[in-house]
Amino acid sequence: MNKIFLSLLIGFVISTLISPLVIKFMKKLKANQTIYEYVDMHSKKAGTPTMGGVIFLLGTLLAYFCVQGGANQMALVCLVCFFAFALIGFLDDYLKIKLKRNLGLKPYQKIIGQVAISIIIAVFAYLNSNIGSGIYLPFTKSLIDLGWLYIPFCVFIFLATTNAVNLTDGLDGLAGGVSFAFFVGFVGIEFVVLKSVTIFDGALVNEYSNILILCGAVLGSLLAYLLCNCHPATIFMGDTGSLALGGLISAVCIVTKQVLLIPILGIMFVISVVSVMLQVLHYKRTKKRIFLMAPFHHHLEKKGIHENKIVVIYIIVTLIISVAGILATILLNY
Amino acid sequence: MNKIFLSLLIGFVISTLISPLVIKFMKKLKANQTIYEYVDMHSKKAGTPTMGGVIFLLGTLLAYFCVQGGANQMALVCLVCFFAFALIGFLDDYLKIKLKRNLGLKPYQKIIGQVAISIIIAVFAYLNSNIGSGIYLPFTKSLIDLGWLYIPFCVFIFLATTNAVNLTDGLDGLAGGVSFAFFVGFVGIEFVVLKSVTIFDGALVNEYSNILILCGAVLGSLLAYLLCNCHPATIFMGDTGSLALGGLISAVCIVTKQVLLIPILGIMFVISVVSVMLQVLHYKRTKKRIFLMAPFHHHLEKKGIHENKIVVIYIIVTLIISVAGILATILLNY
Repeated sequence: MNKIFLSLLIGFVISTLISPLVIKFMKKLKANQTIYEYVDMHSKKAGTPTMGGVIFLLGTLLAYFCVQGGANQMALVCLVCFFAFALIGFLDDYLKIKLKRNLGLKPYQKIIGQVAISIIIAVFAYLNSNIGSGIYLPFTKSLIDLGWLYIPFCVFIFLATTNAVNLTDGLDGLAGGVSFAFFVGFVGIEFVVLKSVTIFDGALVNEYSNILILCGAVLGSLLAYLLCNCHPATIFMGDTGSLALGGLISAVCIVTKQVLLIPILGIMFVISVVSVMLQVLHYKRTKKRIFLMAPFHHHLEKKGIHENKIVVIYIIVTLIISVAGILATILLNY
Repeated sequence: MNKIFLSLLIGFVISTLISPLVIKFMKKLKANQTIYEYVDMHSKKAGTPTMGGVIFLLGTLLAYFCVQGGANQMALVCLVCFFAFALIGFLDDYLKIKLKRNLGLKPYQKIIGQVAISIIIAVFAYLNSNIGSGIYLPFTKSLIDLGWLYIPFCVFIFLATTNAVNLTDGLDGLAGGVSFAFFVGFVGIEFVVLKSVTIFDGALVNEYSNILILCGAVLGSLLAYLLCNCHPATIFMGDTGSLALGGLISAVCIVTKQVLLIPILGIMFVISVVSVMLQVLHYKRTKKRIFLMAPFHHHLEKKGIHENKIVVIYIIVTLIISVAGILATILLNY
């Protein structure tokens, strides 16, 4: 537990220190978020630099290796996944700036990249003796074996999660804050699982500990990032950040067999995706809109709720669910 | 632990439900905060109703009795203290509105009220066999016996804490958010103390559990209040809220002998008080100011940092210290 907190602290300090440099660098690069569609509401944001995800990517990497020195298999896979998805996001962000257009990578290019990484991780997990094709029922120790369906299921999880975080990234502090609250729940739950007497294998305990230390580093780095990104934001995470966070969330849940936690702790991400899907489907059928604007947080904004309040609501709801999840895990494992 | 979370949930729900009513009522009462001194910066806030502390006062009371049914001695003393200080604050707020002046109660009237309540609680604690004149060294089980000095010490703690929270209440979400983070640390630390094997007396365990459930109710109610009070605030807590919170923080720390936690977990409160004291003393001597404006959070604001960012920084710092405190308590008690 102390190492988790230590990596949180170091992640927070490192990310706080590098954030002014990243902001300055991105401003020089003219990496401004192209604000489209809803210019009326967010015109103030036009000058804000993007690709701020770099802050917590570097912060996490440095803090993790400061605390742990090296990574074993699972933590390494998660880190690779974190940076691989960041790379796709980075290409997307970079092309937007370079070509001065609203869309960077073409949708099919993005998806090919995401699917490729997902398949690699899914196959790795499937073949790994410590992971395999089982996933836990949330908060319990009951395993469901998916067999070979595990691989397409994992790919689906990756695509859904990365795009959900990406969609949720629309208000100052939203994606970062909700991800922070998600990791609070995840770390708590995994910590309880680790302390419960069901794991006897020393190497596996070590693997899990490393994942938790990695999450600690992310928590600290996200806090520092939120200092810059909270309303009024001085930098946005960009696709660099949102795809990376989605990738990391998927990866840590896959290697710990806790995939089913994602839709629970990440309920606000689910709301983002589902609201977009409902909006699009309903519009195609009836030419009418269900929401004033999708994802749902923009609907609330159009309803006249201040952006900062929406963010606070999303974070509080996620935090309450996270704490409930930790308590449920304690209850069901002791 | 589940009861603590239950009271948090119920406090959150009740306070969320009553907050629109309170806001409407206070608006009718024309209970607007008289914004003085720094009208230039905060002119937008002139129409915002105050006395929002009522939200978490009622929320806490109802949630606590929903979960626990009755209160034993210690929890009752804390509740009485919560509402007694709220009453002083309420008189102050109410007179401001009624007399349409910037100051409600005269300073000496306020202080007489605060000292009177403090002495009653201090004497109660001193004479109570479960409390007495000892206070714990922070995070440990070492007691320092203050003897009869305990009583003036407690009075000092009450005056310092209530006025510190009062001074910290100057930006949207600041006093509420920092108090929330304070209680997170306090509940965590007391929970560890309660679970550590040093308390054998069943009745005392019960007393402590009730305090924790009370704190859970406060945590939930504060979250709901923060939804209204976060930037841009739709209501302020007023002196009603800030004195009440200061009173409760003092009371729960006094009955659990954890008074020395206040300046640690409440470091941001200390910064508020100390910055005001330094400013005043230095000005009296040299006619120069150290800070652009005191308390310190207004100095930061004058420096051009957005109000919301200052609040986020204050809350994050308090949360990190709270978590560090919980870990320190675990390390030193197991």
